[in-house]
Amino acid sequence: MAAFHCLTFLTDYGLEDAFVGVCHGVALQIAPDARVIDISHLIPPGDIRRGAAVLAQSVPYLPTAVHVAVVDPGVGTQRRAIAVEAGDSVFVGPDNGLLTWAITAAGGARRAVALSNRDLWRDTVTATFHGRDIFMPVAAWLATGVPLDRAGDPIDVTDLVPLPAPAFQVTGRAARAEVIMVDRFGNVQLSLPGDEADRAGLVRGATVTLAWDGAEITVPVGATFGDVRPGELVCYRDSSGLVAIAVAGGNAAERLGLRPGSALTLTVGS
Amino acid sequence: MAAFHCLTFLTDYGLEDAFVGVCHGVALQIAPDARVIDISHLIPPGDIRRGAAVLAQSVPYLPTAVHVAVVDPGVGTQRRAIAVEAGDSVFVGPDNGLLTWAITAAGGARRAVALSNRDLWRDTVTATFHGRDIFMPVAAWLATGVPLDRAGDPIDVTDLVPLPAPAFQVTGRAARAEVIMVDRFGNVQLSLPGDEADRAGLVRGATVTLAWDGAEITVPVGATFGDVRPGELVCYRDSSGLVAIAVAGGNAAERLGLRPGSALTLTVGS
Amino acid sequence: MAAFHCLTFLTDYGLEDAFVGVCHGVALQIAPDARVIDISHLIPPGDIRRGAAVLAQSVPYLPTAVHVAVVDPGVGTQRRAIAVEAGDSVFVGPDNGLLTWAITAAGGARRAVALSNRDLWRDTVTATFHGRDIFMPVAAWLATGVPLDRAGDPIDVTDLVPLPAPAFQVTGRAARAEVIMVDRFGNVQLSLPGDEADRAGLVRGATVTLAWDGAEITVPVGATFGDVRPGELVCYRDSSGLVAIAVAGGNAAERLGLRPGSALTLTVGS
Repeated sequence: MAAFHCLTFLTDYGLEDAFVGVCHGVALQIAPDARVIDISHLIPPGDIRRGAAVLAQSVPYLPTAVHVAVVDPGVGTQRRAIAVEAGDSVFVGPDNGLLTWAITAAGGARRAVALSNRDLWRDTVTATFHGRDIFMPVAAWLATGVPLDRAGDPIDVTDLVPLPAPAFQVTGRAARAEVIMVDRFGNVQLSLPGDEADRAGLVRGATVTLAWDGAEITVPVGATFGDVRPGELVCYRDSSGLVAIAVAGGNAAERLGLRPGSALTLTVGS
Repeated sequence: MAAFHCLTFLTDYGLEDAFVGVCHGVALQIAPDARVIDISHLIPPGDIRRGAAVLAQSVPYLPTAVHVAVVDPGVGTQRRAIAVEAGDSVFVGPDNGLLTWAITAAGGARRAVALSNRDLWRDTVTATFHGRDIFMPVAAWLATGVPLDRAGDPIDVTDLVPLPAPAFQVTGRAARAEVIMVDRFGNVQLSLPGDEADRAGLVRGATVTLAWDGAEITVPVGATFGDVRPGELVCYRDSSGLVAIAVAGGNAAERLGLRPGSALTLTVGS
Repeated sequence: MAAFHCLTFLTDYGLEDAFVGVCHGVALQIAPDARVIDISHLIPPGDIRRGAAVLAQSVPYLPTAVHVAVVDPGVGTQRRAIAVEAGDSVFVGPDNGLLTWAITAAGGARRAVALSNRDLWRDTVTATFHGRDIFMPVAAWLATGVPLDRAGDPIDVTDLVPLPAPAFQVTGRAARAEVIMVDRFGNVQLSLPGDEADRAGLVRGATVTLAWDGAEITVPVGATFGDVRPGELVCYRDSSGLVAIAVAGGNAAERLGLRPGSALTLTVGS
């Protein structure tokens, strides 16, 4: 495998401690020529689904890279550490489903190894900080051109721990979906792909009735926040191609009381 | 235009999502040799005045660069996307006033274009994420040496959307000003330039009476926080050359109930 | 002194303002080839002990570098600005104890200077932002190969302002310690080194009774969070080699009401 010029890095480490910085330091010592792109380090602690979604939605816009992701509540237990080749990139992290959706977004897993070659780890490995001691050093070595199969024992890609994809269902002019993420702006991203929504008639100019938990509201379908007046709700296809709900200049998640995992039905009007 | 070695990046994207990271990824693919400096991504959502102030106060200390700034509540509407040459740098962002004060700080707009050349955009442009799809790719191409006039149609620099500057007025030994920003430490930055304050006698060793909203307080004028005892208020010229109010080791904004836009009168004592 | 390829940067500047970004800008203009690693900028305002601990625990994992650290409530007063050579690195910051523990971790101070050579400062130095005006420019010049003794007047390394180390005491199978830090996950790091704890019998499989402020709780000693069930407490040796207390999948600091500086006794059971 050729060398990589780029490492990307996503974790739930937060920014108030030095966890992220020391991982950068470890990478720089092994792969001084690689650039490290921080995707996010504010994944809520242990929230594998959020980490998986953020990573998967980023991958189409990132360079070919060794992608390191660590949301790892099982650190130090028997869960495997893995490196997986998909597309032109390699994904490194815990085998807990975190990488699943990103690997799919990158074209599917071609080869995988369980990280077992201690020559690529730090000399001393602690039980609670594998980002620093295993994942980042292995990733950095891979970036320098060390071949994937040097990192450990091959494992069957069908044997990787899966993460069930967010569910959705389209029936005629109605759909069922769940909330994947709420972003900084309070925009509520649903598990319904825009192309599927199109088939159900959920297109600009239509209206859609959202129902969840006994609540119900009808909102216009637009292309962007500016299609409605400030403070008004709009349903639109977001920048990842998924149906989302926003308040122009406001916070839809707070307004509607929606959160990741909330289940909704959508019924398209005229 | 020569190539730029540096891109700077300021947004209201926050750090919990991947918005910032994917923009870095887009830049790296187009301009792999450019360094990207993050100014801040925690501008409050949609707060154009805060974004404008933070950017303008940073510019004097930043390298010659393509400066990308995105606080863009009108994304996807008819508001223009622009690139503006000022000093030795180029500013890229929405034409909503966000860039105004920084352009002034850089010496004023010399040339401007409306970003209309889709060859410099990403192939697919979404309605809600122009930072990723338009602003950053255009900026990165400019950094590689693509001339400004290749980015779009020329527009008259007097035709850019302006942002009214924060007001201040000095009369004898008194002044009127407003709060521009409150920083992390709770220091309250006023719209009163230090040189103007000097003319009003607001110099180290003097006292100044601040009045706002029925409240009134007299505080010493110092050079730094250490000129007063812990917990005491001090009025000083801040690191951007503007009059500011601090509590030594404390939070002046909380103590005084001041926030951006608050109007004050300052009356200098002996 | 040879040039440094890396600068590291730790502050209490926060990320909502441009303080960190402009320091990067200053560094890039002086030392364009140096990489800057951000360790953390979310040290609580003015919290020298937290800054000192985060920096000291990072140093073993960082490249040889000029380490810049600024938690500086005395900025603009008579407190000295210093650069200290320790190990193969140089530490730059205020002489207020912030650098003490990191210098120790790097092998102890060999040489020190008080930063007095204004040729290495920015032309204009404000009273409240020495990170931008003094510390970062001096550090960047040192990174380019300017010798330490060019930065200012030599000072005796025994004359640097010290920071008392967190206390601990081991007596038989008991220990006294204090809380050094609480991390993002709510894990509570104690001042008790793992090797000392081993001597007291605090090893995997044992139990330990923690007592503080009238509270008392007995918890198992494990190697990692996965050694106990979700929601249960565990005492373990953390990634910096110190005894720590965690809740698997939860927040130990909140559960126990512990915070930095809290004093505990630990009594080892069988």
